[in-house]
Amino acid sequence: MIEDKNQQRTQLSDLGEFGLIDHLTKNFKVKQTSTIKSIGDDAAVLNFKNNNVVVSTDLLVEGVHFDLSYMPLKHLGYKAVIVNLSDIYAMNATATQVTVSIAVSNRFPLEALEAVYAGIETAAKIYNVDVVGGDTTSSKTGLLISVTAIGEVEPSNEVYRNGAKPNDLLVVSGDLGGAYMGLQVLEREKEVYKVNPNNQPDLEPYTYIVERQLKPEARKDVVKLLSDLKVKPTAMIDVSDGLSSEILHLCKQSNVGCDLYENKIPLDPQVISTCEEFNIDSTTVALNGGEDYELLFTISQEDYPKIKANPSLTVIGFMREKEAGVHLVTRAETKVEIKAQGWKNFNA
Amino acid sequence: MIEDKNQQRTQLSDLGEFGLIDHLTKNFKVKQTSTIKSIGDDAAVLNFKNNNVVVSTDLLVEGVHFDLSYMPLKHLGYKAVIVNLSDIYAMNATATQVTVSIAVSNRFPLEALEAVYAGIETAAKIYNVDVVGGDTTSSKTGLLISVTAIGEVEPSNEVYRNGAKPNDLLVVSGDLGGAYMGLQVLEREKEVYKVNPNNQPDLEPYTYIVERQLKPEARKDVVKLLSDLKVKPTAMIDVSDGLSSEILHLCKQSNVGCDLYENKIPLDPQVISTCEEFNIDSTTVALNGGEDYELLFTISQEDYPKIKANPSLTVIGFMREKEAGVHLVTRAETKVEIKAQGWKNFNA
Repeated sequence: MIEDKNQQRTQLSDLGEFGLIDHLTKNFKVKQTSTIKSIGDDAAVLNFKNNNVVVSTDLLVEGVHFDLSYMPLKHLGYKAVIVNLSDIYAMNATATQVTVSIAVSNRFPLEALEAVYAGIETAAKIYNVDVVGGDTTSSKTGLLISVTAIGEVEPSNEVYRNGAKPNDLLVVSGDLGGAYMGLQVLEREKEVYKVNPNNQPDLEPYTYIVERQLKPEARKDVVKLLSDLKVKPTAMIDVSDGLSSEILHLCKQSNVGCDLYENKIPLDPQVISTCEEFNIDSTTVALNGGEDYELLFTISQEDYPKIKANPSLTVIGFMREKEAGVHLVTRAETKVEIKAQGWKNFNA
Repeated sequence: MIEDKNQQRTQLSDLGEFGLIDHLTKNFKVKQTSTIKSIGDDAAVLNFKNNNVVVSTDLLVEGVHFDLSYMPLKHLGYKAVIVNLSDIYAMNATATQVTVSIAVSNRFPLEALEAVYAGIETAAKIYNVDVVGGDTTSSKTGLLISVTAIGEVEPSNEVYRNGAKPNDLLVVSGDLGGAYMGLQVLEREKEVYKVNPNNQPDLEPYTYIVERQLKPEARKDVVKLLSDLKVKPTAMIDVSDGLSSEILHLCKQSNVGCDLYENKIPLDPQVISTCEEFNIDSTTVALNGGEDYELLFTISQEDYPKIKANPSLTVIGFMREKEAGVHLVTRAETKVEIKAQGWKNFNA
């Protein structure tokens, strides 16, 4: 629906495997001093001196994590890198390298892989990471991207999920629920398109939330901001599965409880208006929507003056003793327990 | 054909995602001192002091790299780790950690994932690496495993592909062609089974080559042997795509030529007899078969006395000036140019 279907098509089987990898990665430049040797040997070689190395990996699967009928391939390559960098930033670390493996069926021409790699290259350039390895192979059906992100951090700067203390403040960057509502809009337009393929969707009123879904950003800037403000979070996680799930992780691993204030949850006006249009509760969307890639962290109360004026950060809750449990404090000032969700991906 | 079809079946959708990961990784123990923090946060945290870090990644895709009609799931988990460790050893490094991501369709019950993880755990234990992260998600169709292996090496011990010099000797560990011939036997028995499902295959005469295909090993022992013998290869690569392809990589990156002696290529008697049975040329199998995961390396001639008596190592060729080209010297003492193969995976 968004893609140009009259593309040039070069069959992948016309190229040798190594010709393909050389072709796709020829523009990739090494910029990190920690990258000793990049693509081209059995393994990449890195050196981090005395810093700790952080490693995280994620899979994106066609039909599960993305739908190519509205996800442009370049955006997909970009997003695959971003979701992994987000995990590195959630350790309060600097992302330095990624490896990217792609499985792709014969129905994709070379130009499709070039588009995916163009997105990977753009993300690598903007976030200043080196693409140091990977694997490109065929699949029997769809497209799958596996990214491993590597970063470095001074041991004294590391932030885990398990350091939150009772009385700490719960803080989130940016706003929530946008990626989920963007997905709802795209799914609706896809249904319209199926009925009338000549009908070009008007996505103008949804620009922000559609971009949150198709081209999310990782909060590298928030890690730098916290460093500049001299705030070291006591615990941190990225918001990939929805706010409620992430709060439960922080609470479980830190052995604390939490009161989350519904009226403090940051929502973009476009999220609010689209929730009204779809007749969905915006708090439910923020709690369970996922894919926002914001950073959720706890700080000691004494750090509150350093962050309170910052437009990128919102205090949304208060950590409590474990026995107090994990609750949403609603606008009506009732307390509702926050519970774990099932696993969406494995439901039919 | 080999699997027990009367297994217990627990639906993956019955579990939460985090319950599943906890369940699958609960037996995994951290043993490497370089592992600071393993599974359970946004990223693993590692520390290698002043050593260099080596990183390699590979995808295994159902229907492309393996066929579940004869590949037991435990062996698949084992093999997915092995093929990645092999790349680490090819850098003359010590493998220390892996991350494992799996995409799996709803047709697989929990018990299938447990079997894959049992193989991963066995490989991790035998090769002394920590499983420090991963991702488990659903796929629309088959099973896919993505492994990233991490290792460490003192900078002075690193061996790249580009260090071979004219007059160096070309050496290979173990023997070649077994994995490919094992695959031929398994494919034949699969066809027999399709015709008569009650016919249990007699794999007894093919034990070695079937094991080379289903449960390969990585040559960690060869890296140690070379260290004990005080031999530092001038260049090294692992044999994953077949001897000819790996020799071409070494020659291209080292800017040298090579004479490979047909009569020196190490072949197991079972490979020779099975090649006769299938009426396939054994040299062709060794050159193009792949998946042997042996180490192919070059050494300076002065190191020859240190390795010549070793049953694990065979000198198979002689590196030459680039202008001399890359040739197979046949038993009939004619010279045949070694050329790059196409990309098997993307052919229909």
